Amino acid sequence: MTLADRSLVTIDDLSNGEIEGLFSLTDGMSESMSDQFGVCRGKIMASLFFEPSTRTRLSFETAMHRLGGDVISAVDIKGSSLAKGESIADMAKIVGSYADIIVIRHPWEGAAKIVANYAGVPVINAGDGSHEHPTQTLCDLYTIKKERGTIKGLKIALWGDLKHGRTIHSLIYALARFGATILFHPGPGFELPEHVIRKLTTEYEGELKKYEALEQLTAGATFPLDAIYMTPVSPHQLAMMPDVSIQVEMEKGVDALYITRRQTERLSALPEGQDITDDYPIVNKELLNRKAFKKTLVMHPLPRVDELAHELDADPRSMYFKQAARGVPIRMALLSLLLGVKDISISAEGNSSINKSDYPVYSRDTGISCSNPKCVSIQKTEVKYITPEFKIVNDNPLTLRCIYCEHEIQPKYIASADWHEGRLNSKKYHSASSHWARIIKPENLIIFDSESVAKTHGFKPSHYTESEQHISGTEKIINEE
Amino acid sequence: MTLADRSLVTIDDLSNGEIEGLFSLTDGMSESMSDQFGVCRGKIMASLFFEPSTRTRLSFETAMHRLGGDVISAVDIKGSSLAKGESIADMAKIVGSYADIIVIRHPWEGAAKIVANYAGVPVINAGDGSHEHPTQTLCDLYTIKKERGTIKGLKIALWGDLKHGRTIHSLIYALARFGATILFHPGPGFELPEHVIRKLTTEYEGELKKYEALEQLTAGATFPLDAIYMTPVSPHQLAMMPDVSIQVEMEKGVDALYITRRQTERLSALPEGQDITDDYPIVNKELLNRKAFKKTLVMHPLPRVDELAHELDADPRSMYFKQAARGVPIRMALLSLLLGVKDISISAEGNSSINKSDYPVYSRDTGISCSNPKCVSIQKTEVKYITPEFKIVNDNPLTLRCIYCEHEIQPKYIASADWHEGRLNSKKYHSASSHWARIIKPENLIIFDSESVAKTHGFKPSHYTESEQHISGTEKIINEE
Amino acid sequence: MTLADRSLVTIDDLSNGEIEGLFSLTDGMSESMSDQFGVCRGKIMASLFFEPSTRTRLSFETAMHRLGGDVISAVDIKGSSLAKGESIADMAKIVGSYADIIVIRHPWEGAAKIVANYAGVPVINAGDGSHEHPTQTLCDLYTIKKERGTIKGLKIALWGDLKHGRTIHSLIYALARFGATILFHPGPGFELPEHVIRKLTTEYEGELKKYEALEQLTAGATFPLDAIYMTPVSPHQLAMMPDVSIQVEMEKGVDALYITRRQTERLSALPEGQDITDDYPIVNKELLNRKAFKKTLVMHPLPRVDELAHELDADPRSMYFKQAARGVPIRMALLSLLLGVKDISISAEGNSSINKSDYPVYSRDTGISCSNPKCVSIQKTEVKYITPEFKIVNDNPLTLRCIYCEHEIQPKYIASADWHEGRLNSKKYHSASSHWARIIKPENLIIFDSESVAKTHGFKPSHYTESEQHISGTEKIINEE
Repeated sequence: MTLADRSLVTIDDLSNGEIEGLFSLTDGMSESMSDQFGVCRGKIMASLFFEPSTRTRLSFETAMHRLGGDVISAVDIKGSSLAKGESIADMAKIVGSYADIIVIRHPWEGAAKIVANYAGVPVINAGDGSHEHPTQTLCDLYTIKKERGTIKGLKIALWGDLKHGRTIHSLIYALARFGATILFHPGPGFELPEHVIRKLTTEYEGELKKYEALEQLTAGATFPLDAIYMTPVSPHQLAMMPDVSIQVEMEKGVDALYITRRQTERLSALPEGQDITDDYPIVNKELLNRKAFKKTLVMHPLPRVDELAHELDADPRSMYFKQAARGVPIRMALLSLLLGVKDISISAEGNSSINKSDYPVYSRDTGISCSNPKCVSIQKTEVKYITPEFKIVNDNPLTLRCIYCEHEIQPKYIASADWHEGRLNSKKYHSASSHWARIIKPENLIIFDSESVAKTHGFKPSHYTESEQHISGTEKIINEE
Repeated sequence: MTLADRSLVTIDDLSNGEIEGLFSLTDGMSESMSDQFGVCRGKIMASLFFEPSTRTRLSFETAMHRLGGDVISAVDIKGSSLAKGESIADMAKIVGSYADIIVIRHPWEGAAKIVANYAGVPVINAGDGSHEHPTQTLCDLYTIKKERGTIKGLKIALWGDLKHGRTIHSLIYALARFGATILFHPGPGFELPEHVIRKLTTEYEGELKKYEALEQLTAGATFPLDAIYMTPVSPHQLAMMPDVSIQVEMEKGVDALYITRRQTERLSALPEGQDITDDYPIVNKELLNRKAFKKTLVMHPLPRVDELAHELDADPRSMYFKQAARGVPIRMALLSLLLGVKDISISAEGNSSINKSDYPVYSRDTGISCSNPKCVSIQKTEVKYITPEFKIVNDNPLTLRCIYCEHEIQPKYIASADWHEGRLNSKKYHSASSHWARIIKPENLIIFDSESVAKTHGFKPSHYTESEQHISGTEKIINEE
Repeated sequence: MTLADRSLVTIDDLSNGEIEGLFSLTDGMSESMSDQFGVCRGKIMASLFFEPSTRTRLSFETAMHRLGGDVISAVDIKGSSLAKGESIADMAKIVGSYADIIVIRHPWEGAAKIVANYAGVPVINAGDGSHEHPTQTLCDLYTIKKERGTIKGLKIALWGDLKHGRTIHSLIYALARFGATILFHPGPGFELPEHVIRKLTTEYEGELKKYEALEQLTAGATFPLDAIYMTPVSPHQLAMMPDVSIQVEMEKGVDALYITRRQTERLSALPEGQDITDDYPIVNKELLNRKAFKKTLVMHPLPRVDELAHELDADPRSMYFKQAARGVPIRMALLSLLLGVKDISISAEGNSSINKSDYPVYSRDTGISCSNPKCVSIQKTEVKYITPEFKIVNDNPLTLRCIYCEHEIQPKYIASADWHEGRLNSKKYHSASSHWARIIKPENLIIFDSESVAKTHGFKPSHYTESEQHISGTEKIINEE
C-alpha cells in the first residue's frame, strides 16, 4: 500500500498497521544503509524550522541525504518573510511549489495542519508548539518495539513534564492505541492537561485512575505513581482491579521509564514561591537499582538537563542515544513512503482505522474563536483566511475542541439557528450551562464568546440568562479579564 | 550564444534578445524538469543572503538542486566575517575562489556590482537594498509573456509602493524596453523616485504624463491612475494623444495589475500624523469586478500584507503563486546559462544592444561622494578601496548619478582642472547652478561637496559664489542639516 | 597509511610526515578537481558552527561538496538545543550518530576535544575559542611549502595579534616542528601568552630570545623585531649567535611576513587610556619596499581590517587570497583521509612521532578547576561529566596545564595523599610555593584552589602555611578578587 502524498501532522494520521509497516521498512533500511543512497535522487525536502532545534532538523536532513535527496532549509524566523507579515498559508503554497516534501517546526499550535492544507505536497510536523511531534513518537515506539518485540501489554512509566511535552502527548496517544499500560508521574505543576485526559478516556476508550484513588497504594509503593491508564485491550480493566493487584503488578517491573525535561521555555511564569526543581523526578543510578527497574529501558527524547544523570550513559538499559540515532532510519522510511518511492504491505487487521469518536463539528462564523493564545487560528497574520472550527466533544458542560490546536474551551452563551430564521422575536441567547445546551441540535447551535458578541449579532438575553446575570456578576468579571 | 561567465546585476545586463532566449530555455526546462537533474553536476552555487529572505533564497537553492548542483549558504549577517569588519570585495574574492557562481542579497545599494567586480565568477543580484532585483523581474516578465504571448503594447498597471520596491524599479525598466504602456498608481508617499523617472524618460526615451496632467481624466476614471508611461514603440505618442483617448484606451481593459506591499522595513519614519494605511491601494474581489479588470492578470511579488485579499487566491486571474513557482525554472535557466552549461540562440534583432545614453563619467577623487546613506561606495569598510564614480546625467541643474547605487545628487560647487594646472591664482570655485556648469568641459570638471572641501583642496570662492553666499545663507543652513 | 577515524583537534595530532603526506594528496587533488567529485559519495559532514564564521564554514562545505559528499549544518547557537541546556557531549553523541564526520567551531576552549571524545566519528576542530584552529595552519604551511619548496630553515615573521590569534598559536607550533626561525613582532598588548612560550621552549626544545635581549639590535634594525625563536634543527643555536650575526641574517631577507588583525571581539576591555590602534603594525606598500621584504610572501588568515593595505592586493608577493583558496583542496584532502576513502604513504623519518614532553598528570577530584573562564571544563552544562585534568608542567613554581584548553595555572596550596591514608593527624596543607612542591611525589599530590577548599576536605594549615598567612594577607585579598 502507498502512503504517497499523505501528510503526518499528528500521530493519528497513521493507523497502527501503517506504523508497523513503517517500522518494517525502517528495519530493512537500517540493515543496508548504503543501499538507500539514490532512493530519493532528484527529490527536494524543505526544512522549515521556526523554532530552535538542532537534533530534529539535522536528523531529517541526514535522512534525506542518506536517501540521496537534496535539502533546502530555513532556520531563522527573523530572516524569513514571516517578518514581513506573510501568512503561513502563503509560505506553504510557495515552498510547496519549490520542494517535493516539507518538514515544518513552528511555535504556533496547529501550524503544521495549515501548512499541510495549503502546501500541495506532503508535510511532516516536526513539532507545533506544545501540540504534537509525531516523528519523535515514532522513534520512541520503534525503540520500544525493537527492544521488547511488542508494545501491547507493556508497562510504560512517563515521568517529568507531562504538561508541555508535545513528545509526551503524541507518545501517550500512540501507547494507548497499541495497548500499553501507562504509569504517570509528572513533576509538580507539570500534570497532564485535561484535553489529553479526555482524549485518552473517550477516543481511546481506556480508563484512567488518578492519584487520589491511588493514594493508599502509593504510600507503600515501590516507586512514585500518580495515575495509571489502561487500555481496553488490557487483559483486565483497571476499574475491576483492586489496588493491591496493581501494586503486585507494578512490582513485576516496568518495561520502560520515559523521562522528559521541564520545558521551561514554555512556562509563562512559575507559581509564586515555587521552585521548578522542587520534587521534579530525577532518574539516576540509585533509582535504577530498585527491583522494579531491573530490566527497564531508560528513555528520554533529549535534550536533558538535570532529570537524567550522566552516570547512566554507559548503562545497557539506557536507550536515549539509541532513540536519537534511530531517528535517521525512521525518518528515511517515512520520507520515502510519503514521497511515494517506497510502499509497505499492511495486514487487514493492522489497517483497521483508528476508532475516533465522531463528534459534531461547529464552524459557524459568529465570533467564537480559540482561546489558546498559541493557536494558529487566532494569529494576526492568519485570521484573514482561517475559519475557526471546533468539534463539540461534550454537551455538559458544553465543550469545544479546536480542530487546529486541539485545546478545549467551554463557551458561555448559546442560541439556536432554528428559532431565528424568520422569527426575529425569539432571537434569544442562553447560558451554555443551561439545559439548552442539550436541547439545541448541533446543526442549529450558535455559540458566543461573550454577551456583547451575542448582542452584536442581534440576540437578546433569555429570562434565564438575565436572572443568571444577577447571580453570576462576580464570575462574569473574572471571565472578562 | 553563450552567456558563460557573465553576471546579472541589473536587468539591463541582459538584452531583450537574451531575455527571450532565457525564456525559451525556461520553457524547455519546465517541460522536462526531471531531465535537468545533472545539468550542473559538480557545480557549486554560493547563496549569500545579508538580508531577510526565504522565498528568493529557497527558489535559487531549489533551482540549483533541480539541476543536480550543490549549494553553500550564508544567511546570517551577524554570523558572517562582515561582523569582523571585512569588506565585501574581500568576501567576494574568497567565496569566488570556493564556488562556481554567487547569488547575493545585500542591504547596501550597489553591493552586487562590487561583488561582481571582485568575485572572478558569475554573480547574480538577488536584491541590493532598494536598487534592483532582476530575477524577480524575469519571473514577472516571463509570467506576462507566458499568459499573454507578448509584452509589447500591453497595458500594465503598477500599484502600491513604487518608491522602495526594487522589484518595481527593475520591472519598470524592463517593461519600458519591451514596449509596454505603464499605468502608475502609487500609494500616497510611495511615488516613483526622480532618478527612476529620469532614466525612463531619457535612457528609454519614452514619455511620462504625470497625474497633474491627468487630473481631468481621473475625475471620471474607471480606475485610479496617477501617471502613464508610453514607450517610443507605442503606436501613438502620449503627448499627441488627447486625454479622452487615453480614457477610451483604458476602458478597453488592463492586461496586468501588479501590486506591491508597503516596504515598511525601508521606511525610516512616517510623516507625522500620516497613517501608512491611508489610501494605500487594495486589490480585492470588488475591484476586480470592474469592467477594465475583466481579463486582467493579478500579479504580486509576495509576500503580501493587506493590499491583496486572500479571497482572490482561487480566481483564475490570480498569477502571484504562479509567479513564485516559475521562479524555479527561470533561475534554473539563468544558472545554467551563466555557468556555461547551456547556450541560447538569439535573433539578430533581439540581440541589438540596449540604447543607453552615453553620459560623461566623473571619477575625480576630490571629496565628492554619493549622498545615499545606503550606497555601498560610502560604507566604512568599503571606502578603503572603492573610488566614487558618477555619470553626469544633466548639466542644468548639474546632476550626477552614482554608478553603484544609481541615486542622483546635485552638487553645490564646481571648478575647472584646466585653469589651475600651473595657474594657482585662478583656482576659483563656482556655484554648480551658475553658467560655469555648462562652460567647463566634463574632462576638466572638479566637483565639491561643500565649500570647506573646495577650500581644503586650495580653491577660493569666485566673486559670484561669494555674493551668492550672502544671499543663500538660509539655504546653506538647510543643506547642512 | 590510513588516517581513517582519527580526529584533528590540535595541529600536534598530525606528525610532520602525515602533514607532508596530506600536502601531496592536496597537490594531486588540486590538479584534477573535477575527478574528485564522487570520492565521498554518500558521506555526510556535519558542520557545527557556534561562533560567527563564513570563510571557514563555507570552505569546509565547499570541500565536502567538491568530493561529492553531503553536508548538514548548524550555524545558529541560539537556534540550537544548547539553548535548552544540553551539554556538548550529548550533542556530539547525537550528531555523531547522524553524520560520518563532524567539523566544529565553538567559543569554549577545549570544546573540540570534548566533541572528539564523545562523537564516535572523526572530528575536525575549526577553531575553539583562542585555543587552536589547525586547518588554518595547514593552509598557511601548505602555502609556504608550495611557494618556497620547504619550511625548514625559513625565516617567518609573525606580526600583529599574537595573543588571541588561535591561527597564530597553531602556526607557531607547526613552524617550530618544521624547523623554521620565527621573528615575532606583536602589537602592544598583543604579545604571545606565557603558555605558548613555555610550550615552544620546552616541548619543541627551541630557544626564544625576547626583545629585552634584542634591544641593542632593534635600535638600528631593518624592521621591527621583538623576539626570535630558533628551533634545535637550526644550523646554529640562537644562544650562541651574537646579536650582530642576527642582524646580518635578518638583512638577507624574510621569507614570509604573516600579519593578523586584532581579535577585538576577544578583548574583554582595553587598558584605560590605550587606543588599540596605537603602534599596531601595518603592512603596506611602503613597508614592502624595504630590502628585507623584497621576496617576502605576504600572508594573512583574513578577514583583515586596517593592518593590511588593499593596495597590496595585486602585488605578486601577496598570498592571502591564495591561502584562502587553497583551503578547499587542503580540506578535501583532510576530509577524505579522515573518512578513510584516501590513504597516504609516509616516509619512516617523517612518521617519527612528535617529541612531546611526558609530563605527570593530575586528575584528582579535590576542587581544583581550570581558571580560564572560557575553558570547556568549567562551563555550567559541562561540569556534570568532565573531570578536570592537568599536566604538571613545572614544579617551581608549581604549574598545571589544563588538558582541555591548555591554559596554565599556578595553584596556591598542596598536600600529600601519602600522609593521610589512615594518618588523620597529619592532614596538613602547604603553600604551593614551598619546598613541599618538589618533595611530594606527583602520584601523591593533592592540590587546592584555596584554603577554604583544603579545609572542606579536612586539611589543616601546616605551620609554614600559617605563618605565611600572616605575611601574605594582602596577597590573599588580591587573589580573592
